Amino acid sequence: MDSIGKSFIRKDARDKVTGRAKYVDDYTRADMLFGATARSSETHAKILSVDIRAALKIPGVRGVYTHKDIPGKNIVPLVLPDYPFLAEDTVKFRGQAIALVAADTLDAARKASKLVKIKYRPIPAVYDPLESIKKNAPKIYGDDNIFRKFVVTKGDAEAAFEKCDAVVEGVYTTNYQVHAYLETQGMMAAPTDTGMVVHGSMQCPFYVLNAVSDILGYTQNRVRIIQTTTGGGFGGKEDVPSIVAGHTAMLAYITKRPVKIIYDREEDFVSMSKRHPGYAEIKYGASRDGKILAAKVRYILDGGAFSTLSPIVLWRGTIHAAGPYDIADVKVETYAVATNKVPCGAFRGFGQPQINFANESLIDELAEKLAMDPLKLRLKNALKPESLTITNQKVGPSCGLAETIEKAAAEIKWGEKRNSSAKKNNSYSKKYIRRGVGMASTIYGVCLGAGGRFLAKAGAHVQIQQDGSVTVAVGNTDMGQGARTVLSQIAAEGLGAPYALVDVIEPDTSRVPDSGPTVASRTTVMSGNAILDACKAIRSRIDPIVREMAGAEARAAVTADGGFYVVGGGAVDRDPRRGATGKKIPYAEAVKKCHAERVNLTYDGWWTEKGTTFDPMTGLGDAYIVYTFSTTAVEIEVDTLTGEVEILKIVGAHDIGRAVNPMLAQGQIQGGALQGAGYATMENLIVKNGVMLNPNFSGYTIPTSVDAPPEIIPVIVEKEFPDGPYGAKGLGEPPLISVAPAVANAIYDAVGIRIKSLPAIPEKILEAIKNSR
Amino acid sequence: MDSIGKSFIRKDARDKVTGRAKYVDDYTRADMLFGATARSSETHAKILSVDIRAALKIPGVRGVYTHKDIPGKNIVPLVLPDYPFLAEDTVKFRGQAIALVAADTLDAARKASKLVKIKYRPIPAVYDPLESIKKNAPKIYGDDNIFRKFVVTKGDAEAAFEKCDAVVEGVYTTNYQVHAYLETQGMMAAPTDTGMVVHGSMQCPFYVLNAVSDILGYTQNRVRIIQTTTGGGFGGKEDVPSIVAGHTAMLAYITKRPVKIIYDREEDFVSMSKRHPGYAEIKYGASRDGKILAAKVRYILDGGAFSTLSPIVLWRGTIHAAGPYDIADVKVETYAVATNKVPCGAFRGFGQPQINFANESLIDELAEKLAMDPLKLRLKNALKPESLTITNQKVGPSCGLAETIEKAAAEIKWGEKRNSSAKKNNSYSKKYIRRGVGMASTIYGVCLGAGGRFLAKAGAHVQIQQDGSVTVAVGNTDMGQGARTVLSQIAAEGLGAPYALVDVIEPDTSRVPDSGPTVASRTTVMSGNAILDACKAIRSRIDPIVREMAGAEARAAVTADGGFYVVGGGAVDRDPRRGATGKKIPYAEAVKKCHAERVNLTYDGWWTEKGTTFDPMTGLGDAYIVYTFSTTAVEIEVDTLTGEVEILKIVGAHDIGRAVNPMLAQGQIQGGALQGAGYATMENLIVKNGVMLNPNFSGYTIPTSVDAPPEIIPVIVEKEFPDGPYGAKGLGEPPLISVAPAVANAIYDAVGIRIKSLPAIPEKILEAIKNSR
Repeated sequence: MDSIGKSFIRKDARDKVTGRAKYVDDYTRADMLFGATARSSETHAKILSVDIRAALKIPGVRGVYTHKDIPGKNIVPLVLPDYPFLAEDTVKFRGQAIALVAADTLDAARKASKLVKIKYRPIPAVYDPLESIKKNAPKIYGDDNIFRKFVVTKGDAEAAFEKCDAVVEGVYTTNYQVHAYLETQGMMAAPTDTGMVVHGSMQCPFYVLNAVSDILGYTQNRVRIIQTTTGGGFGGKEDVPSIVAGHTAMLAYITKRPVKIIYDREEDFVSMSKRHPGYAEIKYGASRDGKILAAKVRYILDGGAFSTLSPIVLWRGTIHAAGPYDIADVKVETYAVATNKVPCGAFRGFGQPQINFANESLIDELAEKLAMDPLKLRLKNALKPESLTITNQKVGPSCGLAETIEKAAAEIKWGEKRNSSAKKNNSYSKKYIRRGVGMASTIYGVCLGAGGRFLAKAGAHVQIQQDGSVTVAVGNTDMGQGARTVLSQIAAEGLGAPYALVDVIEPDTSRVPDSGPTVASRTTVMSGNAILDACKAIRSRIDPIVREMAGAEARAAVTADGGFYVVGGGAVDRDPRRGATGKKIPYAEAVKKCHAERVNLTYDGWWTEKGTTFDPMTGLGDAYIVYTFSTTAVEIEVDTLTGEVEILKIVGAHDIGRAVNPMLAQGQIQGGALQGAGYATMENLIVKNGVMLNPNFSGYTIPTSVDAPPEIIPVIVEKEFPDGPYGAKGLGEPPLISVAPAVANAIYDAVGIRIKSLPAIPEKILEAIKNSR
Repeated sequence: MDSIGKSFIRKDARDKVTGRAKYVDDYTRADMLFGATARSSETHAKILSVDIRAALKIPGVRGVYTHKDIPGKNIVPLVLPDYPFLAEDTVKFRGQAIALVAADTLDAARKASKLVKIKYRPIPAVYDPLESIKKNAPKIYGDDNIFRKFVVTKGDAEAAFEKCDAVVEGVYTTNYQVHAYLETQGMMAAPTDTGMVVHGSMQCPFYVLNAVSDILGYTQNRVRIIQTTTGGGFGGKEDVPSIVAGHTAMLAYITKRPVKIIYDREEDFVSMSKRHPGYAEIKYGASRDGKILAAKVRYILDGGAFSTLSPIVLWRGTIHAAGPYDIADVKVETYAVATNKVPCGAFRGFGQPQINFANESLIDELAEKLAMDPLKLRLKNALKPESLTITNQKVGPSCGLAETIEKAAAEIKWGEKRNSSAKKNNSYSKKYIRRGVGMASTIYGVCLGAGGRFLAKAGAHVQIQQDGSVTVAVGNTDMGQGARTVLSQIAAEGLGAPYALVDVIEPDTSRVPDSGPTVASRTTVMSGNAILDACKAIRSRIDPIVREMAGAEARAAVTADGGFYVVGGGAVDRDPRRGATGKKIPYAEAVKKCHAERVNLTYDGWWTEKGTTFDPMTGLGDAYIVYTFSTTAVEIEVDTLTGEVEILKIVGAHDIGRAVNPMLAQGQIQGGALQGAGYATMENLIVKNGVMLNPNFSGYTIPTSVDAPPEIIPVIVEKEFPDGPYGAKGLGEPPLISVAPAVANAIYDAVGIRIKSLPAIPEKILEAIKNSR
């Protein structure tokens, strides 16, 4: 292969390091206005009045608008229709949007937004999901404040526990995590002859298309959504950009001028989605020899004031609620619950990190109870190709979980470091520093699966220009993860074109059909397969020309810069393993000839996920088309005087089917591991009575490059996925998921303290050490 | 049919009349610069030096650049590689671009462009094509100043003339015509992360793509060309925008900022292409009963200083050089010749109006010699379906020439008005006013034919959005002729969608493959067929769903707002004539169901012209895929005191296969007729020794609405073209072609004066009247 498995430099590298890359805030129009948002100061209240007079008096203000000015529908189109673009008579969280300002300058807009005077009558509020599901709790959503409930019932867990020799159980909780993307939310909308064009920072242009066409009351062919270079998403730009774009487009519609809205960091913190705080009651039972026989999980996500993506975040958490193990009897009950706080939504891992923290911490507790090495316990129960998941789905051939466990253990020197005598006889100069190692594994369902069945599709427009250069358009986005590069590689390989001649154009909803969201680590598989579908069709038009050029009996050699050869039986191929010799037809010549013959070298490819059979009533069936398997191992130091945890090394071992670009895959693993390290030990959003106390990077700390562990070692395992593009599965999210439980297990290894709530900040560890003495 | 043959309001009507439509000069960027061009004051000279110091001193000027600053190639990519974007060591016409200025304001840029000081050493020049082809003429192009020569040799014309009872011959000349589009040339180029985006006024985005990628040295996938709303083209925006875009993109590349270049009217006049002045020696011979037996043509086009499109303009003129008649023996020789004047290029009719003026004037002379009604002479010799053209191409079934002659004659009241006694006994109060009627016919090869074989292709991207609205992208442009509307109708019909839900997005070279130029009245046929190819593919995915929804044996009725029904044998159709009854499946429901099933409702259609077999060596073979047939009849008054001609009525009868939108077809006929009337009687560009003396509308007059004839009557004949979309052929150009000879023939009818050079301006007529006395 010429273009697969090669660590090409990212297509966007040069523009990003030289500052040429254009983010949405770099877009300007000569007659552009700026927008700003007036927000609720209350967590739950009736709106009595909105007085815009003072705001209108600010010089440069062109108008102040409320829900009454919306030309179309005032509902953000997501799973459930509960979230208005602008509050009508009630606000349900502090920070909810109430009014919009358009002004000549950003300063005037922001200043005016603070002068919109809103009178409220407070309503009793509830901030704790466990309180919220109680019968007499203040009502936020429906009759019971439950956005969604799922169950999985495999076998008879209660009966199975009876037969177990060892049973462990515990309650594990996790806090918010903030996406902390480099670039805050931002959109620019401009009216056109026919409708509206919106440029902006986003993951999911088709969600934004739905939102903008709904709020304006336009048919979708009058609206174009174009993704600009996006400075990170991590799920935070899945659904939220729909709101920002809706607001911006509404202002552009009313003022008939281009409008830009860019959030500052604090506004982004208080109003945008977060990782759900999680609450998990969990129980595992095993036989004496370490075979896990039963699992029971009760898992609650704190959804905040509106449902947004909570139902599907919960669904993913549900399917993965018992860990990557072969367990015969499982009972899972999960809930997404409303509270009067900022709505929570998508975040790298999507409902899995919270429950994986519980799973994998408790697995270590089970190992201790069984007096078994947790490594061996994991290996013994790890899912294998022939195993059934908790939903009774057969795993299938692309399953390298055991190999990730073994390789992560080897890389962290598990046998040596886990030896407690080695720890006691340590040579550290500071005796109050204790070292430990820990590991955790996970399974990750790639793509949307049955939970997002209607969106489980992707299109790709592939066009070979007259000079042989290739334009690829897809419906999924590059938010920094490298999709543009990886998809260019797939297209180059599929067409037989040199990588340098292929590029992916920015997503535009008028170019390709709705391809679902860019989430669920699905881009390589979905857009990659759609591209290959197009390449296949285009190759079926090129190949006869190549045969003609090469002569009926000719053999043409593959060329380093792309090209084709004719092999036995007249087939056209690029793979030298098939032993072609003789005349080669370079790519450029083949394309030139095709264009001269007026052969159409453009095609719209398509791919859908097939074969998901999940039944939501029982919680059983094939939930996802394939799974990525991962194991994280860490070595840490705990400072027993300060409670600080320093992570010395993270090993992330991932079976991703096939690494299209190994260097980019390694980068994903390293980035995800670091984000997981922040989640594990540092990132601590404090929300008291619905009020965010540290909505900025001065108070909410994320790991910087200085905080990064000295070593983050990526290990790639390649058990090819037969239906993936060149065998690839997804990798975007798994690297984050298991870091926190691995760290927690290492802390236990180091100091014997079991951390049951994230993050493992120093004060928490220090208190636990004190309590344990 | 729901959408074909219906006079829907133009999609762009409302935006254009309310001023919302955005032309390129309406595009602005906050950091945009303005460009201007320094041009040659000489008609033929060596450039000795270019001094930019004074220009650089103008406040706001950012730079002045010459050919040395071009990053890529300095040749406008057209048929022959002779025209540099910026002159190097030689200039060949007054007005040729030499240097470019970029400045903060338009004023500064234009002022500075006048201050670029160029020193020349003049070279002998030649301005008359008949002089230019002489052996010792100054050399402008190659060894002989001939850009291209063509011949057609059918039978033995010389021998055939020997057998004729009547032979007529004459020399006919025509002057320039200026396109006089409402919007002058203009482009805006902006650097992007990956390359360059150019927005502008144009007919042929893929020509511009070639030009911009060449001048910048970029692969084509790094360049995007987007057509903005275009205020008329008429051929003047076929090749010329390549130059303007090349200049603009070069400035944007160098300055790394968006740059806009907009020409003022005078700059547009002196530098942009024109209709070629034509020189035709022509001879017809006939038998006593009026059967035309032989024709001989020598036809010379004055190409100006660079070849641009002259070779293919000449080719079209060649194929149509003997008129729409069945003539057994024909000899044609044609030349496109270089002179030191502004390059001539494409203009509605493309080499046909000049020669048609000769053909149809001489046909009337032949009729007079035969003492035959010219109407009867035309009918007797008119091409019929079984006839052979002068290239020996069988005309085929879509041929309504005789019907256009008869209907035009009836509409102009030929029998009554042509009666000379009626003229003598006229009742006009002013005795010096004389009335006359005249007619002329033409054949028009639709699309590019064999002369543009490699470009004879078109793509179309058709995408049904989630809400059922439809986005159509094509590679051909709407320059005002109504393509957006007509193509929307074709797509609506092809998909079974309501017309209101369909729209065509602005052309963008990254969306669809190279679809050739928007010329040759080819858009309805080419883009229409490509759209239908896409619709067919999409319908093949919708129809099984419709069958499923309707039930195996169901009958579903067609609905007024789009929809499908299942007819006998399980076929899905929209045509109520097939007698469906029972359950109807509305379009919206069918689409909704398809999207829920994740059916791909996007497709890239494609169409190529097939079966052109023309042999350039003999000039014989099938030259075009089909022909449009037309007859123009006029009634005029000649003021014998002033020489002024007033056109009272124009009848344009055209066999266009099928009128997709009759009102738009009528508009094309009326607009073309008026432009033809200007060509016939008013438009008179004066170029003396290579210097344009009246380069503005104050000196070059075109007919305004006040000058328009009181009646322009469109007559549509529909002999369906089996390979056209719903039977349609092309109409863009034919309405102009035969107006001038019809007027000349009417002048002769009125006052017995034979005008042999266009335009028929008053002084020319007056002089001829004086001479005839």
